[in-house]
Amino acid sequence: MTGREAAKSVLRAQKIELPSWAFGNSGTRFKVFAQQGVPRDPFEKIADAARVHAHTGVAPSIALHIPWDAVDDYAVLGRAAADVGIKLGTINANVFQDDDYKLGSVTNPDPAVRRKALDHLFACVDVMDRTGSRDLKLWFSDGTNYPGQDDIRARQDRLAEALSAVYERLSADQRLILEYKLFEPAFYTTDVPDWGTSYAHCLKLGERAKVCVDTGHHAPGTNIEFIVAFLLREGKLGAFDFNSRFYADDDLIVGAADPFQLFRILFEVVNAGGLAADSDIAFMLDQCHNIEPKIPGQIRSVMNVQEATAKALLVDTEALGAAQAAGDVLGANGVLMDAYNTDVRPLLAELREEMGVDPDPMGAYARSGYAEQITGDRVGGRQAGWGA
Amino acid sequence: MTGREAAKSVLRAQKIELPSWAFGNSGTRFKVFAQQGVPRDPFEKIADAARVHAHTGVAPSIALHIPWDAVDDYAVLGRAAADVGIKLGTINANVFQDDDYKLGSVTNPDPAVRRKALDHLFACVDVMDRTGSRDLKLWFSDGTNYPGQDDIRARQDRLAEALSAVYERLSADQRLILEYKLFEPAFYTTDVPDWGTSYAHCLKLGERAKVCVDTGHHAPGTNIEFIVAFLLREGKLGAFDFNSRFYADDDLIVGAADPFQLFRILFEVVNAGGLAADSDIAFMLDQCHNIEPKIPGQIRSVMNVQEATAKALLVDTEALGAAQAAGDVLGANGVLMDAYNTDVRPLLAELREEMGVDPDPMGAYARSGYAEQITGDRVGGRQAGWGA
Amino acid sequence: MTGREAAKSVLRAQKIELPSWAFGNSGTRFKVFAQQGVPRDPFEKIADAARVHAHTGVAPSIALHIPWDAVDDYAVLGRAAADVGIKLGTINANVFQDDDYKLGSVTNPDPAVRRKALDHLFACVDVMDRTGSRDLKLWFSDGTNYPGQDDIRARQDRLAEALSAVYERLSADQRLILEYKLFEPAFYTTDVPDWGTSYAHCLKLGERAKVCVDTGHHAPGTNIEFIVAFLLREGKLGAFDFNSRFYADDDLIVGAADPFQLFRILFEVVNAGGLAADSDIAFMLDQCHNIEPKIPGQIRSVMNVQEATAKALLVDTEALGAAQAAGDVLGANGVLMDAYNTDVRPLLAELREEMGVDPDPMGAYARSGYAEQITGDRVGGRQAGWGA
Amino acid sequence: MTGREAAKSVLRAQKIELPSWAFGNSGTRFKVFAQQGVPRDPFEKIADAARVHAHTGVAPSIALHIPWDAVDDYAVLGRAAADVGIKLGTINANVFQDDDYKLGSVTNPDPAVRRKALDHLFACVDVMDRTGSRDLKLWFSDGTNYPGQDDIRARQDRLAEALSAVYERLSADQRLILEYKLFEPAFYTTDVPDWGTSYAHCLKLGERAKVCVDTGHHAPGTNIEFIVAFLLREGKLGAFDFNSRFYADDDLIVGAADPFQLFRILFEVVNAGGLAADSDIAFMLDQCHNIEPKIPGQIRSVMNVQEATAKALLVDTEALGAAQAAGDVLGANGVLMDAYNTDVRPLLAELREEMGVDPDPMGAYARSGYAEQITGDRVGGRQAGWGA
Repeated sequence: MTGREAAKSVLRAQKIELPSWAFGNSGTRFKVFAQQGVPRDPFEKIADAARVHAHTGVAPSIALHIPWDAVDDYAVLGRAAADVGIKLGTINANVFQDDDYKLGSVTNPDPAVRRKALDHLFACVDVMDRTGSRDLKLWFSDGTNYPGQDDIRARQDRLAEALSAVYERLSADQRLILEYKLFEPAFYTTDVPDWGTSYAHCLKLGERAKVCVDTGHHAPGTNIEFIVAFLLREGKLGAFDFNSRFYADDDLIVGAADPFQLFRILFEVVNAGGLAADSDIAFMLDQCHNIEPKIPGQIRSVMNVQEATAKALLVDTEALGAAQAAGDVLGANGVLMDAYNTDVRPLLAELREEMGVDPDPMGAYARSGYAEQITGDRVGGRQAGWGA
Repeated sequence: MTGREAAKSVLRAQKIELPSWAFGNSGTRFKVFAQQGVPRDPFEKIADAARVHAHTGVAPSIALHIPWDAVDDYAVLGRAAADVGIKLGTINANVFQDDDYKLGSVTNPDPAVRRKALDHLFACVDVMDRTGSRDLKLWFSDGTNYPGQDDIRARQDRLAEALSAVYERLSADQRLILEYKLFEPAFYTTDVPDWGTSYAHCLKLGERAKVCVDTGHHAPGTNIEFIVAFLLREGKLGAFDFNSRFYADDDLIVGAADPFQLFRILFEVVNAGGLAADSDIAFMLDQCHNIEPKIPGQIRSVMNVQEATAKALLVDTEALGAAQAAGDVLGANGVLMDAYNTDVRPLLAELREEMGVDPDPMGAYARSGYAEQITGDRVGGRQAGWGA
Repeated sequence: MTGREAAKSVLRAQKIELPSWAFGNSGTRFKVFAQQGVPRDPFEKIADAARVHAHTGVAPSIALHIPWDAVDDYAVLGRAAADVGIKLGTINANVFQDDDYKLGSVTNPDPAVRRKALDHLFACVDVMDRTGSRDLKLWFSDGTNYPGQDDIRARQDRLAEALSAVYERLSADQRLILEYKLFEPAFYTTDVPDWGTSYAHCLKLGERAKVCVDTGHHAPGTNIEFIVAFLLREGKLGAFDFNSRFYADDDLIVGAADPFQLFRILFEVVNAGGLAADSDIAFMLDQCHNIEPKIPGQIRSVMNVQEATAKALLVDTEALGAAQAAGDVLGANGVLMDAYNTDVRPLLAELREEMGVDPDPMGAYARSGYAEQITGDRVGGRQAGWGA
Repeated sequence: MTGREAAKSVLRAQKIELPSWAFGNSGTRFKVFAQQGVPRDPFEKIADAARVHAHTGVAPSIALHIPWDAVDDYAVLGRAAADVGIKLGTINANVFQDDDYKLGSVTNPDPAVRRKALDHLFACVDVMDRTGSRDLKLWFSDGTNYPGQDDIRARQDRLAEALSAVYERLSADQRLILEYKLFEPAFYTTDVPDWGTSYAHCLKLGERAKVCVDTGHHAPGTNIEFIVAFLLREGKLGAFDFNSRFYADDDLIVGAADPFQLFRILFEVVNAGGLAADSDIAFMLDQCHNIEPKIPGQIRSVMNVQEATAKALLVDTEALGAAQAAGDVLGANGVLMDAYNTDVRPLLAELREEMGVDPDPMGAYARSGYAEQITGDRVGGRQAGWGA
């Protein structure tokens, strides 16, 4: 099998999970711009996600956010997904949108609030039991805005206690994925601000606790691929939340801000077997299409991950290893750049045709009439947004 | 007059303008936490601002945000302010909260949207004519999220055209104050991202166009006091928007994150005569009290500016100049630090007593019962928030 | 002429100036690693620069650093350059490597040091008169390390005075190019820290004073292409110092850290006519090949600029403009990305063959035996390094 | 015992270690400015360190850097230190200043270079055996400058192997302290870039492997006190390298850039018992006095740590805890700020007098004539600098 064919073989099996919330309205603290035709409930989000999968062939599941996507009967939701060819994926817990959480959820100084937050996390595991989801993804907005506001160590104690209780609650085939984020919405301390904090907690929890790397959640200048490589070496990389940023957690389309960085990240993944058949890394998008249409925004995102992956797969690792061993700085860099500079769009078009998908997903979606259809259909009701 | 008395003399005349929006609810894109007793209209905001002035003695005006604070009759609003001992101050234009502004206001590629935005700016000048406000503060959220989305230069052309039209519309005693901001809500380009851009536009507009320095609107590592000193030297510093930040535009209480930086900024102001009787620099707060109570948050902010100012006034400039001229690095730094390390709270308590204000503004407010009163009174109606 | 041919036409005329100091040893404050065969005098630097031009065809001049490259007779130096097919280019003044400059050069509190620095700048203009150089590039390391160390405004006064004196000294066909840099070696204030400062000074000096954008000299998160577009619009962009960085002023090979950023910068240049025949923008490299061999490092750098330029030239500006005007965010971004994702290496290989240059400059240099030759020849004497 | 007396009791026992290299010349890659009277050998560095201790009373040991401070007989060196009232402290290994280390030391792709580096580390433990030093501090400049240059994971394997070998070599009362640093001199990857990496390695090594927090080694926006609190909670904080910075690793006088941050860090230390009698945290300075005189620079640094410590000790922890538990954001912040805003210089002057030290260390040193003496004495020979 040539490198090209080997690359296609991996690309054919690649799976990228879509976030249900990407299809709803989103924005900044200054304004949420409403778009036409956005979903009004989880079922419509599933329909939109299925369109992304239909046009790309590699996005066969949708992550849910609880309570945004809470329904009475998850079996019904699961069947709705199955009907359009996708699955329910990761369950994302939301303990940041209740007035009680003003000073934190599981790390709140008030035990009653902590209890409430923990109960919600348990409820999320209940949902997992019903949806058959493997992963519980935890992101805590918890932190403080002012020095002295709360005790940094005490908050870690509370965090450890909550994580431990949740981990205990999981069944043997379920995992806890702990996300970290430098800042926002907390502006002085964040209780899980970096990969080291997430890693240290996961280590204590056990085998099935792993770190989630959100590509937009780092301090300026952080080398993300180093973190990815380090966590892969430790067997502690659980999931990616893909997006991109120029400044802070901008939640732009993955690969839009720094496509070379995305390539370097995926090269570390490929290099460590992270795309192998037995890999348990979850590859998810986590983005906000504030000003661009949502479905094409997701399609473009999936394509960007595919393109970066394809380039990563084309690296001549033998030549690279030889140059590295020889201390040939420019030679080794040149091998990597040769792959990056390759135009992989023809390869991916070919792959799509082999998979029975239109080689031009953006064009195919535009021509499909789906955008016009949902704009016409989804009138009345309350559009889904963050919190809706 | 001793240094201490001279300092008090300046501090007695200091004026810090309060932003009407600081009294309403605010938050992040993740959640706006509602507080009890927040104002439901501009009149209630004025009442709250007057309380801050009553407890500090140095906050005698309130900045308005249009349309948030739009009323039918500004004479009525002005009288309401006068009745409680304060004035209406700077008019802040808001061209970022309408769905039409999704791709920009005055720099929007669509001429109809630009026209709408410009009309709003003209309407703001109409308000100024009625309130007697000197300053029109312009902050544009305009920018782009993705490379290629729009033409950077063309947007500058549109910006220049709008600024020029507004400047023409001003009367001879009115000023245009142009704010800059690195990013947010735009995540790739911002049309006025830095002081240089604002300065260049103001230079072309004329004498009465000046730059506004918001202390939270810079890239990491930016030396803000350098910018302040530079603009003062050029006669182009029009106003401050005071707040503080650890990460991005966190809009925390001024001085809360880096009190030494606030001191250095105010030292440059003092040093350049920016607190002299004939200075026309507007000193405003621009903050969001997301998790702390709003009125005490404003009182603390005013006190922080006072403390930093007091320290700046206590610098032994003669000794400083001598050490600087001698190239005595540690000596010169030591002179500055001597002032910074001084506990100026007794001096300010003394000043307050002389001004007939309680020496402990935070305590006095807590004891006043005002918080309990507004919590009881302001029930029903719609609480004012960003956009309310 | 097709887009491809039009692009080649511009690429054929492109000129990238090489810095003499890139061929000497360089390093960090921790260690300068010596390489074999590095030049021992300006003549050997010229020989190396000529090799880069021989292999690329677009690097026909060398920038000098005074006093590093000072010689008794510049006519002799000029002839040496002409003999190997290149020209002497920009003169870079160095007022940062004398013990007298510990607290600054032209902004030093000591007038005697200022005088010495100014004399050196005059001497650089003398050199220009003899080399026929058009541009005097000024980078001042001047600044302070500690708050209070010196007066920020007074240093601006001194800076303005020195710049004015130098500008007066220039003849009508000579230009002053003022570089800015956020920090290093000064760690608190830098006297020309950002483009705004450089722009403001240049504006006062006159037509022939322009700003130099060094791509590594910005705060994290700065949008460099915005600055480039803004300065081009103002007619104040004088020169580029190309390099790349992940963290601070890393001085890596241009395009190595963020090739997409380099493409966006060059797109703004192309878009504003900056590569037109009548453009007077100087495109220079300014890098330190600390661990990689110098000559191949320069060849790769030139190639990277070429590749980014080629992609910028391939943007379908008509389609882009249409998408921008229509507010089609994803469409406009897609047009830009289509050009970026194109593999332009075949186009450039073709161009090189047409220009009589080997299509594979890196390989051609490796095969040339030049590296072995200089390693053998340049033994003894003092290797050129920063300051040598 | 009042809070004031309790504070003095801790301050009396505080110990701050001085770095031998702070007394030698240092600088940036652009220039090392030579100062008069700097030491020419380790004995003269010891003499200078002893002066700092004489004037402050709390700096009774000196850290050595090997090979910079290598001598034939460490017993002689130890006696020289004892003679002037101080001890030899931490041994700092230097594997970054040999041409062999261009591509790394213990992570170099070449096994021979790794062996050489490891041998040096073993030699450092030999030195410890002779000096009686408890701590081996390891900072590796290892990393890469270009993507692809070397394999990130393989370098971690090599690092782990070297650390393990060194840890094995230590005796039961010796510790390995692993420092991390974001970047410089490596500009793409650093092999130990953050606390998480250091922590993960230390965890595997064992009890006596701990993390060193250098306050200048973080990405912009990093909350250092969070890291300190986290490591203290884990029992993994081994040492501080104190300095301060505005931009990158500026190595300025500790507390000079952000005294409030230093206070917050020390508050976490105090809060976690890090200054208790049984604490094994090493408090060291690690600075470069590039433009200021070295001995006064060290005295000022020690004083700055003392002042921040004194303020941290004055926090009313009972009131703080009560406000935190009540969710009183402004109240809790106010308690912390009350301590920070206190002028502790009188307290420290009093303490010094009680300890038999001049209450004004800077003045006392200036009056002592020591500066003039060493300037006169230390003529000829080679001044100690980085690498000397």
